[in-house]
Parts: sequence; structure tokens; C-alpha cells
Amino acid sequence: MKAVQVVGYHTKLQLTDIPEPTIEGPLDVIVRIGGAGVCRTDLHVLEGQWEEKTGVALPYTIGHENAGWVHAVGDAVSNVTVGDKVILHPLITCGLCRACRFGDDVHCQNSKFPGIDVNGGYAEYLHTTARSVVRIDDSLEPADVAALADAGLTAYHAVAKVAKTTRPGDVCVVIGAGGLGHIGIQVLKAISGVTVVVLDRNPAAVELAVKIGADHGIVADGTHIQQVLDLTGGHGAEAVVDFVGEGGATREGIAMLRRAGNYYVVGYGENIDVPTIDVISTEINFIGNLVGSYNDLQELMTLAAQGKVTLHTTRYRLEDFQQALDDLDAGRVRGRAILVP
Amino acid sequence: MKAVQVVGYHTKLQLTDIPEPTIEGPLDVIVRIGGAGVCRTDLHVLEGQWEEKTGVALPYTIGHENAGWVHAVGDAVSNVTVGDKVILHPLITCGLCRACRFGDDVHCQNSKFPGIDVNGGYAEYLHTTARSVVRIDDSLEPADVAALADAGLTAYHAVAKVAKTTRPGDVCVVIGAGGLGHIGIQVLKAISGVTVVVLDRNPAAVELAVKIGADHGIVADGTHIQQVLDLTGGHGAEAVVDFVGEGGATREGIAMLRRAGNYYVVGYGENIDVPTIDVISTEINFIGNLVGSYNDLQELMTLAAQGKVTLHTTRYRLEDFQQALDDLDAGRVRGRAILVP
Amino acid sequence: MKAVQVVGYHTKLQLTDIPEPTIEGPLDVIVRIGGAGVCRTDLHVLEGQWEEKTGVALPYTIGHENAGWVHAVGDAVSNVTVGDKVILHPLITCGLCRACRFGDDVHCQNSKFPGIDVNGGYAEYLHTTARSVVRIDDSLEPADVAALADAGLTAYHAVAKVAKTTRPGDVCVVIGAGGLGHIGIQVLKAISGVTVVVLDRNPAAVELAVKIGADHGIVADGTHIQQVLDLTGGHGAEAVVDFVGEGGATREGIAMLRRAGNYYVVGYGENIDVPTIDVISTEINFIGNLVGSYNDLQELMTLAAQGKVTLHTTRYRLEDFQQALDDLDAGRVRGRAILVP
Amino acid sequence: MKAVQVVGYHTKLQLTDIPEPTIEGPLDVIVRIGGAGVCRTDLHVLEGQWEEKTGVALPYTIGHENAGWVHAVGDAVSNVTVGDKVILHPLITCGLCRACRFGDDVHCQNSKFPGIDVNGGYAEYLHTTARSVVRIDDSLEPADVAALADAGLTAYHAVAKVAKTTRPGDVCVVIGAGGLGHIGIQVLKAISGVTVVVLDRNPAAVELAVKIGADHGIVADGTHIQQVLDLTGGHGAEAVVDFVGEGGATREGIAMLRRAGNYYVVGYGENIDVPTIDVISTEINFIGNLVGSYNDLQELMTLAAQGKVTLHTTRYRLEDFQQALDDLDAGRVRGRAILVP
Repeated sequence: MKAVQVVGYHTKLQLTDIPEPTIEGPLDVIVRIGGAGVCRTDLHVLEGQWEEKTGVALPYTIGHENAGWVHAVGDAVSNVTVGDKVILHPLITCGLCRACRFGDDVHCQNSKFPGIDVNGGYAEYLHTTARSVVRIDDSLEPADVAALADAGLTAYHAVAKVAKTTRPGDVCVVIGAGGLGHIGIQVLKAISGVTVVVLDRNPAAVELAVKIGADHGIVADGTHIQQVLDLTGGHGAEAVVDFVGEGGATREGIAMLRRAGNYYVVGYGENIDVPTIDVISTEINFIGNLVGSYNDLQELMTLAAQGKVTLHTTRYRLEDFQQALDDLDAGRVRGRAILVP
Repeated sequence: MKAVQVVGYHTKLQLTDIPEPTIEGPLDVIVRIGGAGVCRTDLHVLEGQWEEKTGVALPYTIGHENAGWVHAVGDAVSNVTVGDKVILHPLITCGLCRACRFGDDVHCQNSKFPGIDVNGGYAEYLHTTARSVVRIDDSLEPADVAALADAGLTAYHAVAKVAKTTRPGDVCVVIGAGGLGHIGIQVLKAISGVTVVVLDRNPAAVELAVKIGADHGIVADGTHIQQVLDLTGGHGAEAVVDFVGEGGATREGIAMLRRAGNYYVVGYGENIDVPTIDVISTEINFIGNLVGSYNDLQELMTLAAQGKVTLHTTRYRLEDFQQALDDLDAGRVRGRAILVP
Repeated sequence: MKAVQVVGYHTKLQLTDIPEPTIEGPLDVIVRIGGAGVCRTDLHVLEGQWEEKTGVALPYTIGHENAGWVHAVGDAVSNVTVGDKVILHPLITCGLCRACRFGDDVHCQNSKFPGIDVNGGYAEYLHTTARSVVRIDDSLEPADVAALADAGLTAYHAVAKVAKTTRPGDVCVVIGAGGLGHIGIQVLKAISGVTVVVLDRNPAAVELAVKIGADHGIVADGTHIQQVLDLTGGHGAEAVVDFVGEGGATREGIAMLRRAGNYYVVGYGENIDVPTIDVISTEINFIGNLVGSYNDLQELMTLAAQGKVTLHTTRYRLEDFQQALDDLDAGRVRGRAILVP
Repeated sequence: MKAVQVVGYHTKLQLTDIPEPTIEGPLDVIVRIGGAGVCRTDLHVLEGQWEEKTGVALPYTIGHENAGWVHAVGDAVSNVTVGDKVILHPLITCGLCRACRFGDDVHCQNSKFPGIDVNGGYAEYLHTTARSVVRIDDSLEPADVAALADAGLTAYHAVAKVAKTTRPGDVCVVIGAGGLGHIGIQVLKAISGVTVVVLDRNPAAVELAVKIGADHGIVADGTHIQQVLDLTGGHGAEAVVDFVGEGGATREGIAMLRRAGNYYVVGYGENIDVPTIDVISTEINFIGNLVGSYNDLQELMTLAAQGKVTLHTTRYRLEDFQQALDDLDAGRVRGRAILVP
């Protein structure tokens, strides 16, 4: 089958022909790829940023945001059948460690990460297990939802925590109206009564955010901290979800937070650097966020099937992977780029 | 190997010789039994109470409270190795359904129940999977903890909920100082700051309960509701854990409950029969409780290893299963009867 | 001032002239009534159903769903000022008992209940305290929201619990599409991602419920339990909110509940009568619900100001109280009847 | 009456004679002081560290950890009567703002802080309100518990959060075995099943901590991070409670934290300075902690009355306040210094 592989770092990806994966164990699932998201992380892989961390043997197939159809299943697979439309949770988890047994899949002590440390989805078929495949509604197309598998799932996971700890009238500031912010806003409006204030340097992104549901949009122009304080009676917001995490976002975000408020860290780059006296005197919390669980992904797919979460995508044929990566690198992709075999 | 099997309902169990179980799949685990609890449920099985519900084909091996040593493992088993001491969660779960993915093992949509609907532990060896085996501390012996696998786990599961919703100074009434109550009291004292009031008709049981940690013991002599009210300033208890569930226990237990209190149903037999006006005007809750999860069992084993939860047991050789059952039926067993192959 | 008073049981209310209430303590608030809801409970008061329970001295002014404008305040009142539009929490609470200190106002050990055990709002002015007045948005009119003070607040309180314990894709059955159901449905859609299935014997009520947001409407025609099971893959709903509580609603509602599901008791009349074996084998819970807290009422008013919760009302002049009560008794009121001084 | 007052910054406190406080409002309470804790914060007040923040007019009476007997009460006080033994919550709260209405007293928008911004307890009598007085058990003496009013309450508040989020077998590292750590350890053992590992540079403090209940004591000698990792199978602790917050404690504490673990900030001095990539890739949380609520203080007093929390104190006569402060400053006080009028 065709597959796009990492053959070396600081080298272009290469389209090649490799054997189709096969069922080896009773929980194995082979998925025929319907769409594979092209993500900034793929560029980082090629730059070697993950080389030391994963020690993955080259060549291997890249692509970690995958959806498609079940092509074959092992004997013990009870949650999907051949032909089902599925999206893939980014991790393959063991189901045996204490974290897995609590449903905290992302803290599995024995997980694999297709596209990062084993073969991924820039290919016609992908080898995974029953624990990673989430059946999606008939109304959804794999290529339309593939990019929700990782980036969207991360946004969902963070804002679902916000929904559980806020109440009508509470304010949630969303820092960053890019891809994750876009999903986060839609989810917040779908599952909570919180008032959403979106903040971005890009006026067009703010405008779009308001269009898809944000209650207030603020362009980060130097007056934005004050604008948030004004909107909240001078008290600040009960929640800040930071999808940026660099360029001073954390310092500004903390200044917008109310006493006893929660700061959700999602984007990364800079340090949180805050005096402990400020943390204790206002009793604020910082909440880390990784990608969501398998059940989170089921829930996000429910919202997608209900039309409450949508994503703009631009499709490329698998063979045009280089074009997709180049477009992404140059900022020419509207929404998310998806490779379709 | 030797196994004690159900060969018919309303008929005695029979000791027989059957083939040893073998590894068939990568997650399979064969356990050499070190102890199998003899439980009232085993008597009910023989009376045919489970016949229709399970439709299990006879003969099969009985015994659902099991512990021992790992004898063999499949290729994919990562949580135990041969020779490990283990206790067995009563259910074999799929790890794939939504309940399993939340850690709610007992609501697995595809579970099996060894000793009830597949071969159990009145035998030398038992076939299970990696998802059911919990490694126990070196200081514990399988025969000493086996009876915690089901009855003890049920008590743990219920009172762990109490611990999460009460605070120091709150009162928890434990109705029933038998086997489950005995475990429940020890766990409450080990993991919460709640004041434990134990209630039983049997003065000796009440006395023992106080000895192992209950703060107050009350013999149910007709004045017991008033005694609980007196102990709680007339308000009633924040929590009532009912390990009896028959003979009027629920009606009395509700009368001991404070406004906004929680009533934990564990024992069963009679109906909860309560006016909705009483439920809403006092805003009380009724909380159902089934056996605990795999992780609950890990936690209970931690408490056992720390010496915070102990259980009196009487050992019988596997061949003496009939004596053990007869003693249980006649009320002659002190603590729990355990079969040791 | 004019006031409508209970002068005897099984006797008609009487319009009379009594002195205006005055500020007596530093936390006192006098409210000029803008609207007082006419509620079925008022009929029950006249029938003497509350006589023994409250022991209130006659005559006294009836009316427990009140909103208006702050007319005068004591020295220590810091949360409202004269002229503010306010809705009144149904209880006057002490702020000192442990329940008040947790924010569980309705379990205050020293509360008063205007309209039931002290003078209420069928009058020009009402005496209350700072702890009962919730400021409402300028866009809201007292007469439009008064009926949310008790009935609406009860619905809000119950479904806010549902929102905290459900996730997208979960199903909540709402039994009863009357006044409380109407509010409950709107709130569920505003603050949660749950799928709402409404159930009522009245096809017109079901139709209206779907119009205001319910995802599915089912007319209770004998096939309704099966219809809910069909909608939920045979599993039943994660939550059932029962606004009826009589006529067999609880038995039917329990049959619609999924394993580990929550049954919210709001309406009352009949008994919950359920075998403990069913409670424990499915591990279901019954959750009692009384009226909401002060903060709940703030949140409900936020939703009202956002236009997410609306209520149809029919206004009567205070002098026409008898007409309003007669219309209510005869089922001639569309939405809720409101007295306006 | 006698009172010790701040008469200027960078100046010694002065014993003087001022009028006894009197009841002015219906919720007022006058407390005859039985003990007033001498705290490092008192030294900071004199150094002027609170001058700008509070703008308190001099002279005023210092002392913010107070207990005694109710001497007089206003008309509306329902929770205490004259003669009751009481401990005082450090804040006087309004009971009207949204935070108060949730029971989050410390985030009251209108609070006063006796000893810091109004007259405190280095005196014979103190003026407070019904919302600040917690009745204590007959078995407790005001002078013995006064120091739990602020420092102890802070420790309780933080570790009560730990208790709610950990399970048996989880490990909680307590950084700092001083006054707060001492209380924190006792509370953890009394209300949770967590394994407590205490860490301090002072071997004697570690030894004492183990004596009062810590499961493991580690002297911070450079190998302590590794020792914690070794104790936790290399994974780190589920919770770290940092009572130090300076001298590198936060950096070290984070290194001891397990994936998805919670870091409780209590002590202060340095900055938390942590890469956002580390926060998200391990999904850790930082939880701020201020002093506890009124209800927290009730619970701590319950534990004190049960003998589960004790504190070593050294008593001084009120007139000997300077000696007490000097001893504190020189590190000569064993346990906590208490002034007794």
C-alpha cells in the first residue's frame, strides 16, 4: 500500500510502498484511512524534535490524526465491526494499568502513539487496536472529522473541565481564536452556560469566533486586560483557557483571573512564572491539560454529529502530502489540511 | 485437577477431576488458587436462584471469591508475572465498552462472572484475564484475603462514597455489624474523619464493631432510632449505610437520616417504600451500591497490607467443601469460611 | 397598604388594608411588589394543608413568589440599594447555621417562609432581609419573572444537578411538560450537552416542549417506556427528572433508567416503592430536590436576562386575586398567573 | 481594658488601656479573650509590610488568632450564647456576597480582618460578629486552640482538598514539618487513607513528624527527590503540599509530582517558575490555598476535640507580649506562643 514515511530528520517525507498491515492479535483493528490531519507537529517530527524522546526506528509512517473505515478486526473485538466509520484516539493504550482502569487513557503507562512512535495514518491502512477506535455517526465523513482526533480532542478535554466547574453568569476567557480555540468555543457554548469572552491579536479570528458563538470578542491591542476586567465588574473571569501559552499570554491571562479562579494551560512555549504569594492570596489554580480520553472523543463526536462542532478543512490527495505540508508551513491552509488516500 | 462443581440444582456439589485450564489468548491468566471464599451466594446458586438469570451450562465449577498465585500468562499481559500473589476481581470485563472506559467495571456490557456463569475458584486452577488480577503485597496470604474479593469489595465501594461526601463531625450510621459491616467500619475509620455509629440486633456483634473502631455501638432494641437522633442533636445522621436491607431496616434507616443526607443501599430483601413528599421536603438521596471496581480492589488490598482492614477466616481443605457449606448454613463459621486446595 | 390575607381556612382570601412594613433591623429590606405569582400551593394553604405544620397566626398575607423594587434598606445592607429591581428567594435564612454557611440555604435551621409562615407578597409592600433579595437585570420586569422565584427555582435546582453529572450523548428524560418541566427543559438546553426527551400525557404540552428545545417528545400513551428504551439502544436514560411524582410516574420512570443512572425526584404524591435488589443490582440512585439556593436564583436570573429561560404569564390586578385563583383552580390560566399591585 | 496596640511601624507594641468594646448591632458578639496566638505575621505588621495594603489607622490592637468566651451578644445572634467557649474565624464576613453565599468565606467581598485592619485579640475583649464565632467543645481550652484559628486552619483547608482527591495507596508529600506541616500531617492521617511522606531539612522536625503520624520521614539532604521517587516506584507522588514555598521548594516539589498530580501551594516566598510544556505534558495542577472557611474551622475543632489534632503551646501573660515576640523572633518558642490575659 502507499504510505508517506519519515526516512530521516531534516529530510523530506517520502511516498513509498509498504505491505498492508494485518491482524496479529485478537484486539487488533485495521483501519482503511479516510482522512489524516496534517498538523504542525508533523513539521516538528521532521525537524527531529521528537527523535530523542521516542527513539522511533526509521523509516516509519507519519500522521497522528486519523479517521476511516474498519477494514479488519481480531477475534475479541466487540466495539466495532468491519465497515464501521471510525475516528482514532491518538494513543493505543494497554487497558491494564491503574490510569487506564480509571479512564485516564492519556496517562497509560504502556501507550503507543501512531504517527509518532509507530506507523501512523499518512497511508492507505493503519494498524491499531479496539481500544483506539471510536465509531462515528453515519452523517459524519472521516475526512471531515479526522482533525478533531488530536487538536480538537485537546480543546474538548480542557473546556469540558471548565463546564464542570462554572455556572451561568460565570465568565470564561478563551485566549487564542485559532484551531483549538475555535473548537473550544463551540464546545463551551454547547455544554455549559458560561459567558465566553474570546481574545486574539487577529481581528478576523475574533470576528469569526463571535460568529460561531463567543459572547464577546476582544482584539488583544494592549487594552484587553482592562476590557476583561470591565466586562467582569472589575473582578476578573472565573476561568481562563489559554490556548496560546507564549508571548506573554500567561502573565496577561493571570491578570484577568478572578479570586479563586481556574487557569487552564493548553498552549505552551513560555514559563508560568508567578509569585507564590499571588497564588495563595487569591487562591487561584493552574490546571494542566493534555489530549482527552477515549470517552471524551466519543462525546466530541456526538457534538459533531449534532452539528454543534464543525471544522473547516481543506483536502489534499495523499500523493500531495508535500503540498499540504508546504501550505501549512506557509500559513496558506484555511482551517485544517487533510490528506485523503 | 480437582474442582468442586455444580452438577444440578437442589443437589449437592460434587468434587471431580477436570482438565487444567490453559492460556488461549494473549490477555489470559491462569491462577493457582490459594483460597476461595465460601459465600451465602453459593448456597443460593445451588437453590437455583441464578439458574434462569445466567443460563450457565452444567456442570461448572463454583466459587467467586478467589485469590492465589499467577501460574501462567498470555503474551500481552503486562500487569502481573508468573509467581505473583493475586486476588481476583469478581468480574472479567471487556475493557472496551463505555462503562469499562470510565473505570466502572461493574457496569461492563460484556462481563463474565467466574463461579456464577463460568468456571470459578473451588478448584486448583482458575482461568481469568489480566483485567481481573490484582497483585497483592508480599505480606498478605491469598487465603486470608480471598473473602475480600466480593463481599469486602462491596463494603469498600459503598463506604468510599461516604468518605467522599462527609466531613469531620458528620455521622455515619452503619446498619448491620456482620461481615460487610465489619469491613465497612474498618474502612470508614481508615479513610475518613466521619463518626461511625454501628447498629445491630446482636449485642456481641455491636461489641466487636466498637472494638474494631466504631465510635458508638447501638443494639437495635426498639429505642435505636431515638438513640441515633439523640447522638446527632435531633437532626439525624449525614449518612446511613444499610448492609441489611430487610426486616424494616430501610424504614428505620430513613428515620435516622438528616436533611440532605445520603442513604446507601447495600443489603437487600425488602422494598424501599418512601413517600416522594418526604424525599423532596428533606432533600434526601438513595444511593445504590454494587461491588467495587478493579481499582477499588487495589485500594482495599492496600488497606489490608497496611493492617487497617482484617478479616477473621476459618480454613477448610478443598475436599471438605461440604463441611464448609454446612457450617455456613448452620451459622457455625466464625468470620468467613475459606477453601484451600 | 392593600394586602390579600388568609383570614381563616376553608374561607376565601380577603383584601384588606394594613400598615406598610418598616425597617426594624440593619439587614432588613422592604420591597415594593411588582408581581406575585399565584401558585397551587396558595390553594393548598386555604385548604388548611399547612395549618398544623406552620402554626401561623391568622390573619396573614399570602403569596410566596415575589419580585419588585427595593423600597427601603437597613444600615448594613450591602448587596442592594433603593430602586433596585429584585426577585425574592422564597426563604429568609439566618446565615449563621452550618447549612447556610455551606450555601445550602434551603436547609437553614432558622428560616422563615413569607407567604406561608410570615406575611407574603399579595400586597403592595413586603418585609424581607438582604439575604433574600436577588438583583435582576434591567431588561427584566418583576411581574415577568416573579413566578420563577419558587417553581422555576425548583426546576433549575434539579436540572443543574443533572448538568453536573451528565456528558454529551447522555439522555435525560423529563417526565412532565407543565410549568416546572417547561423551565427545566430550557435550562438543560442552556447549560448542558444532554439530549432531552420530554414525556407527557398531553400532546399539546409535548409539542410545546419540543418547540422550546426538547430533542425528542413522547406522548405517554402506553408505549412510552419502550420508546425511551428504543431511543437509548435498549439501555435507558442516564437521568430521569420526574416533575410528576404521582399516577405511576415513579414506577415508569425507574423502568426508563439506565444502569448507574440517577432519578431526580421533584414532583410528589405517590411513594417510591422499589425493591432494594433492583437498586443495588443496577446501582441506581434517587436524588431528592427541594427549591434552589440564593445563588441558584442568581443563576436562573442570569439565564432569564440572556433570554434563555422564558415563561408565559397572565397578569391580574391585585384586586382581582379571586379571579386569578378561580382561573388557576379551573385550569384556565395559560402559563402562570401573576398579581400586579 | 488592657490592650496591646500598634502605635507606629518600626516601633515596639505598647500595652495601654482602652474602653471595652460594646454591642452595637444585632449580630455583634463580644468575646472575652482566653488566648491569642503570637504569629510571625505580627512581626511583619510591625515592620510595616501590611501598612499600605490595609491603610489601618493607628493605634489599633494587634492579634489575629483568637479564642475565648462569649461575653455579650446582639439580639439576632442565634449560634452562640453568653458563656460559650469559642474560637474566632480570622475574618468577619458579610454573609451577603456571592462568595459568602457559597460558603467561600475567605473570598468575601466585604470582609474585615481583626488584628490586621480592625482591633484584634491582644486584649481582654474583642468585638466581632456571630458569623465569626465557632463554638468549641467543653473539653477544649481557648488558650490551647487559639493558634489553630489561622495557621492551623490554613493547613486544614489545604489538606482537606488532598483528602477529597486521593485514595488509599496514593502518596502525599508534605514539604515542611513546622507548625503548619505538623497540623497538616495530623489532619491527613485523621481524614484520609493517603500515605504521608514528610520532608524537612531539620532531622528533629522530621522525627517528630513521624512520631505524630507521618508514614515516612525524609531529611532534605540533596537525595530527597530521589528518595521520594524511590518510594513511589519512580512515578512520584499524587499530591505535594508545600508549606515552605521558598528556597527552591517549588522546583523540587514539582520534580516529586506524579503525572496528573496536584501541587498544593501554601507557603510562599519564591515564584512558581515552570515551563508550560511540562504542565501540559504531565497534566499537573497547581492549587492555591488561603485560610479555611468557617465550616472548615468547625471541622478542625471537631478533630481537636477528638484528640486527633494537638498543638504544643507556650503560654505568656498578656503583659509579657514583648517577651513572647522576642522569643518568637529568636526561635526560642517551642510550638506556638499564646498570650493569656
